[in-house]
Amino acid sequence: MEFKEILKRRTIRFFKQQPLAREDFNAMLEAARQASCASNKQRLRYIVVQTKELVDAILPHTAYAGLVTPRRNPEINKTAPAAFLVMLAEDTSGKHIYADAGAAVQSIQFAAWERGIGCCWLGSFKPEKVAELLNLKDPAKIIYLIAVGYPAENPVTEDIDADGNPAYYLDDNDTLHVPKFTVDAITEWM
Amino acid sequence: MEFKEILKRRTIRFFKQQPLAREDFNAMLEAARQASCASNKQRLRYIVVQTKELVDAILPHTAYAGLVTPRRNPEINKTAPAAFLVMLAEDTSGKHIYADAGAAVQSIQFAAWERGIGCCWLGSFKPEKVAELLNLKDPAKIIYLIAVGYPAENPVTEDIDADGNPAYYLDDNDTLHVPKFTVDAITEWM
Repeated sequence: MEFKEILKRRTIRFFKQQPLAREDFNAMLEAARQASCASNKQRLRYIVVQTKELVDAILPHTAYAGLVTPRRNPEINKTAPAAFLVMLAEDTSGKHIYADAGAAVQSIQFAAWERGIGCCWLGSFKPEKVAELLNLKDPAKIIYLIAVGYPAENPVTEDIDADGNPAYYLDDNDTLHVPKFTVDAITEWM
Repeated sequence: MEFKEILKRRTIRFFKQQPLAREDFNAMLEAARQASCASNKQRLRYIVVQTKELVDAILPHTAYAGLVTPRRNPEINKTAPAAFLVMLAEDTSGKHIYADAGAAVQSIQFAAWERGIGCCWLGSFKPEKVAELLNLKDPAKIIYLIAVGYPAENPVTEDIDADGNPAYYLDDNDTLHVPKFTVDAITEWM
């Protein structure tokens, strides 16, 4: 797929009840390991959670689209993700590990989208509950989760100027609208 | 360009002395504005620094490839970048703004690479000096710089296992080798 098509990627929160293949995960993890990171230290680690039992157990401890809650909360056996990718690091105290994580997430999302797979990058979840379910001793090592699966919704973007409101919203057809500032609105030239 | 080609992107620190076009910057900024960000708040802003005078003035206040310093420091009129992208935010105190920045940087780098342009994501620079040169009142608002330009070097990656050493190094031909952990080395499956 051409990059301009991949760039149309949007966050997906409702998923088809369809499993992913091992090669789908491998493509996402390949994109993750090639992502830029501070001093090439590659401090991020991943757990692929793909058993339905564990995915369903984690789901209630994750939060989606706060501005329209609960209307974009995926439901078990209806719109739940096929898997979660769990991002971890030994030391999550610095700011650069979050930058590394952001770069890896973006790369993962592109690799997924190329294969027709959607992602939701999750910063809001209960680390203690997730750690317990995954038998991890230290919840603080979990940086982010990514919910993944085939899209069962079709969000759209719309351009806004510098004084526009970036708050996303659902229309009467239950389509999510995601306002994005134009290049002019966010850029200065020198 | 296909995404698998773009994924071969590597960090570039030596650049050809060749300017970039407005449409090159627009492509990078388009990728930036479409990147994922926390709650779609889009808190990142950009300054494109493209005048040679300003680029050359900023260069001494940026640092490159600490493990092989000074052998990957770009030099004015020889290997200097064509431009700097300066990433800013009003509030840089939280961790999620760094995640947003990482996602945007990764997206920018892919858009650049598709056009044959290389980037160096810079976390090590003197914010006070850069702010002074750009007439910015608050150096704390500067999150990262990205040096951009046409590549004048050709770094290579090599795979390493979980017990491998991720330290990059220069060989006798002045080629930078960048070890990357394999997918197996960084992934657990559940």
